[in-house]
Amino acid sequence: MHNIKLTVAYDGTDFRGWQIQPGQPTIQGALTDVIQQLTQERLTLQGAGRTDAGVHAWGQVVSFRTHSELPPKEFQRGCNALLPPAIRVREAEEVEPDFHARWRAHAKTYVYSIYRGAVVPPFRWRYVLHVPRELDFAAMAQAARYFEGERDFTTFSASTGSEEEDRHQTMTRRIFRSELIAGPGGGGFVAPDAMSHQQRSSDECRDEWVYVIRGSSFLRYMVRKIAGTLIQVGRGRLASSDIPELLERRERRYAGPTAPPRGLCLQSVEYPDPTASLMRAGDTS
Amino acid sequence: MHNIKLTVAYDGTDFRGWQIQPGQPTIQGALTDVIQQLTQERLTLQGAGRTDAGVHAWGQVVSFRTHSELPPKEFQRGCNALLPPAIRVREAEEVEPDFHARWRAHAKTYVYSIYRGAVVPPFRWRYVLHVPRELDFAAMAQAARYFEGERDFTTFSASTGSEEEDRHQTMTRRIFRSELIAGPGGGGFVAPDAMSHQQRSSDECRDEWVYVIRGSSFLRYMVRKIAGTLIQVGRGRLASSDIPELLERRERRYAGPTAPPRGLCLQSVEYPDPTASLMRAGDTS
Repeated sequence: MHNIKLTVAYDGTDFRGWQIQPGQPTIQGALTDVIQQLTQERLTLQGAGRTDAGVHAWGQVVSFRTHSELPPKEFQRGCNALLPPAIRVREAEEVEPDFHARWRAHAKTYVYSIYRGAVVPPFRWRYVLHVPRELDFAAMAQAARYFEGERDFTTFSASTGSEEEDRHQTMTRRIFRSELIAGPGGGGFVAPDAMSHQQRSSDECRDEWVYVIRGSSFLRYMVRKIAGTLIQVGRGRLASSDIPELLERRERRYAGPTAPPRGLCLQSVEYPDPTASLMRAGDTS
Repeated sequence: MHNIKLTVAYDGTDFRGWQIQPGQPTIQGALTDVIQQLTQERLTLQGAGRTDAGVHAWGQVVSFRTHSELPPKEFQRGCNALLPPAIRVREAEEVEPDFHARWRAHAKTYVYSIYRGAVVPPFRWRYVLHVPRELDFAAMAQAARYFEGERDFTTFSASTGSEEEDRHQTMTRRIFRSELIAGPGGGGFVAPDAMSHQQRSSDECRDEWVYVIRGSSFLRYMVRKIAGTLIQVGRGRLASSDIPELLERRERRYAGPTAPPRGLCLQSVEYPDPTASLMRAGDTS
């Protein structure tokens, strides 16, 4: 039995989210079909984050167990040959038997992109929320910081179920980083390597702002609700100093509107220690 | 009577090219519908470049005459409200009565993008040709330079009609610049402003290479045939020093294969003197 870990990127625009649903185009469904074709087995894919309909991923992590002797490099090649171009396996490796993409994840990073220019380039509309009106960058950046630390996120949770399988679990989440940064003009996709270059001085005039949040785990709609709330702060409808109180109230009605899915991207998933990688096939880029 | 000039960007993936064709989705067709809705007139749009099916534009220029008193800013706003997000009016201005987007253009710049990494990001596949195999950057860069100057491009012309209305016209074209450059890692769209930053040292390891060609005018398929020929040079099937001979032969069968349309983008169009702009509505980005 082999345990395979895939790092997967996708454009979520035309999919009904990660989770498999009969008769619907989903990421898990498309990947399962293709991997079952390659292995000639029935199998279950574990995804680190159950992204919602329309949400994108750059570094979703997927794992599955298989009897197939196909080397990871061939899994990657086979998947990319059979999948639509909107879903790509960026890396594939064999991992320890007890690795599990979902349960072993100890941090995830999401990015929410806001396009500030007057006209969204036709090459960017799938990946950004367009907010051309005036927004107070400094106030939003300050508000973003209040989400860092160990917090009860009831206010920023969904009223219809949560991301967690156990609904009795705590609403407390640990957020390591919550930051608004000014992205690149013209709006290239924010790849992890590029991130550090973008952390230069906050510049309100840049075409694209990205909100980056890294945490232990997330409640359903949590990032989109925080993004929607930050925009309310930018418009002056809330003060950045209101955030601690909103969190303390633990009532959903105090959160801002849920920002649309297209601006959201699951950027990366981290695991406690470097996965003992038996064989590895990464992209050379 | 007013003469209106629009600068238009589009993702050509889902269109049958610029030129209007009954019952087919085309850029000219979509724009004509929307502008006729705004003006309540029947009118004809002139486009600077008749891009083929699947070809993109960042700076296509369009002009039309209208009796409508709608200010340019309202044309831009109205178009962007009614058009699909794959087509955007980036700028609108009123110009002199004798301005004509096609006949007045004195230079156009096209960009052809080649993705070099092993896996094309799902956010880039619509805009690049994927060539992951080994390519000799230096040889291609050298070959590209041979297209500069006044040349007979018969070898690099289409066998089925040309871009020119007058088929008896000369096959000679003046090329001001023909250069292969290493694009940004991660592959942001090459916006005109960013271009100068990318002209740093040629770097074969970069994920994206862009071929930039600026000329007085172009024959149909000319840029795609040159791009296909450059790739043949990169693969060692042609020497860069073969290019002058290929040009001199004036026979279509000596050109490399026509590269696919998705890598091609009409970057910008230039006019002899700053258009006497009566009113202007540019995007503030």
